[in-house]
Amino acid sequence: MYRIAVLPGDGIGKEVTKGAVNVLQAIGDRFGHTFHFSYGLIGGEAIDREGTPLPEQTLHMCKQSDAVLLGAVGGPKWDSNPPYLRPEKGLLQIRKEMNLFANVRPVTFYDSLSGASPLKPHVIEGADFVIVRELTGGLYFGKPSERRIEKGEEAVVDTLFYKREEIERIITFAFALAQKRKKKVTSVDKANVLESSRMWREVAEQVAKRFPDVQLEHMLVDNAAMQLVRSPKQFDVIVTENMFGDILSDEASMLTGSLGMLPSASLSVNGPALYEPIHGSAPDIAGQNKANPLATILSAAMMLRLSFGLTEEARIIEQAVKQVLDAGYRTTDIAQQGDCVLSTTEMVEKVKDAI
Amino acid sequence: MYRIAVLPGDGIGKEVTKGAVNVLQAIGDRFGHTFHFSYGLIGGEAIDREGTPLPEQTLHMCKQSDAVLLGAVGGPKWDSNPPYLRPEKGLLQIRKEMNLFANVRPVTFYDSLSGASPLKPHVIEGADFVIVRELTGGLYFGKPSERRIEKGEEAVVDTLFYKREEIERIITFAFALAQKRKKKVTSVDKANVLESSRMWREVAEQVAKRFPDVQLEHMLVDNAAMQLVRSPKQFDVIVTENMFGDILSDEASMLTGSLGMLPSASLSVNGPALYEPIHGSAPDIAGQNKANPLATILSAAMMLRLSFGLTEEARIIEQAVKQVLDAGYRTTDIAQQGDCVLSTTEMVEKVKDAI
Ligand SMILES: CC(C)[C@H](C(=O)O)[C@@H](O)C(=O)O
Ligand SMILES: CC(C)[C@H](C(=O)O)[C@@H](O)C(=O)O
Repeated sequence: MYRIAVLPGDGIGKEVTKGAVNVLQAIGDRFGHTFHFSYGLIGGEAIDREGTPLPEQTLHMCKQSDAVLLGAVGGPKWDSNPPYLRPEKGLLQIRKEMNLFANVRPVTFYDSLSGASPLKPHVIEGADFVIVRELTGGLYFGKPSERRIEKGEEAVVDTLFYKREEIERIITFAFALAQKRKKKVTSVDKANVLESSRMWREVAEQVAKRFPDVQLEHMLVDNAAMQLVRSPKQFDVIVTENMFGDILSDEASMLTGSLGMLPSASLSVNGPALYEPIHGSAPDIAGQNKANPLATILSAAMMLRLSFGLTEEARIIEQAVKQVLDAGYRTTDIAQQGDCVLSTTEMVEKVKDAI
Repeated sequence: MYRIAVLPGDGIGKEVTKGAVNVLQAIGDRFGHTFHFSYGLIGGEAIDREGTPLPEQTLHMCKQSDAVLLGAVGGPKWDSNPPYLRPEKGLLQIRKEMNLFANVRPVTFYDSLSGASPLKPHVIEGADFVIVRELTGGLYFGKPSERRIEKGEEAVVDTLFYKREEIERIITFAFALAQKRKKKVTSVDKANVLESSRMWREVAEQVAKRFPDVQLEHMLVDNAAMQLVRSPKQFDVIVTENMFGDILSDEASMLTGSLGMLPSASLSVNGPALYEPIHGSAPDIAGQNKANPLATILSAAMMLRLSFGLTEEARIIEQAVKQVLDAGYRTTDIAQQGDCVLSTTEMVEKVKDAI
């Protein structure tokens, strides 16, 4: 039995997690696995009902689970709340509390979605890489992060802080991943300006020695932002610190024209991992049965592979998604002229049929 | 008489500044202006000859000038030098010493270069925006920036620091610029995570009140990295802090497929400004008379307009560049099949002919 904590969150989060749970149940039926789902509050709804974006009970449930499936958090309703009462705070807290240091975002190009990409086909076709983002350090969590008076003037400070061990952990993770793929790591930093990047580069060189079959390349973050648009096919595994990773992975997710398609995993050293779609809570279409459930369904596939070792089952889901797309079925976000546009629930049914 | 300090720097820096100086002389001849050029060392060559990337003499000359024209700095030869002996350090120092707080990068799409863009024509055609990057604060200059031992463990810290006044100065600059353009400012921050971004957003709101005819929009940096690829036409003036600006402006410069075409200006409150191409020193093609001089020539045009108020002269240069491109002339970096490929010096001659 696999215990899955489900955190639907806000906006379309409910609809897409429901779709993924449905697909997991179909997989369970077919392969004879039992998935046990328990539900918790996070984000805006948790603020409304419990007065905090990450209730103690939710965290406890997640820590007791074998894996966590998250929808999305946030919405205009909470945008003017003070920082500690914002939905995103719940996400940042759960990452920190569950020690989810490695955010893994595969960027896969689907031939059948070529029309939806802003890039020319020859630039993007065949691109297939993974961004590994450090998720529990850097500018996101460093102290001090505060207003100050300096020499009588108002000022503000944020802190980019890393322990060497944190850098080593994420880079080692990236190398191990590259070893199972195309054996190339692009380590992204700003070593010509930041001291933290210079340590990052040193550590990357050291870790590389333990993986002689994997090629290491360093790239400055500004150049990486260019290269992602210019020739995304050059990449295999990109590893970078938290803030750079936030920016580059969102840029990368746009390249394929399928933001609504991309899953992610956030892994810890030995506790349960968290799986969620890249996209946000899309309040504008929430509750309309229009959201694209595929990113969450693909996140569930990542869960099967990475948390439960159910490789075949994961592959079946991924294949089902590809098949449904190849057959021309689309949700509105990825639809082009002539496509057959489905609702969220219809899309989920199509995937289940293909399983 | 206009006194221009020329800092050719490293790699192709020499060739491209020479081209721009040539074009300025042609403008001088035609309009009866006298430009006086004096030359200084910066970057790698300054390290080799003077033992420092920014010799005192260079800085003095620049401060005495009416404007500075820079080529590019850096190269593999100095890549393993300690931080204070790296070519980029010269660039960072001159920015700080001359108080060049506003980096202005226009991103212009040239119809005739549409083939060289990685983006589909309908996405990029007609895009025309400016990125205003804060250049003397933030993570680039905050202290502490150092290695440490924390609880017995090796660690590293960098600091993102801003005085409120620095934020206000750059945002005010962006609004004043937007007022002369399409009257829209997109202020980019990460207010859901950083305290500095929350101050940034507050200040943007305040400044906006003084420019009631300019529309203000806030955008998170990860979303901005997506939107630049997805629909670059939505932007007019983007304003953001130093590191975000570094990343986004390089991303943006790739969109048009004409990195070798894009100029920049770095302005101070009331001292001389510095003009330079976006591109780097391209050591691989240095000395081969192959470099694209157009970005530096267009930087010279920005100098005429912004530092000397010679609007008509600036327009003539920009028009000459467009004319040469429309006639199908290209340097190798922007050449497509069927184009007429010119050397650096030939391209400079074509521009001069068109003036
Ligand atoms: C919601 C926000 C705090 C978060 C982040 O910046 O990490 C999001 O952008 C993401 O990438 O998961
Ligand atoms: C060379 C480097 C220090 C510099 C920067 O990061 O500012 C460059 O990338 C730029 O954008 O001018």
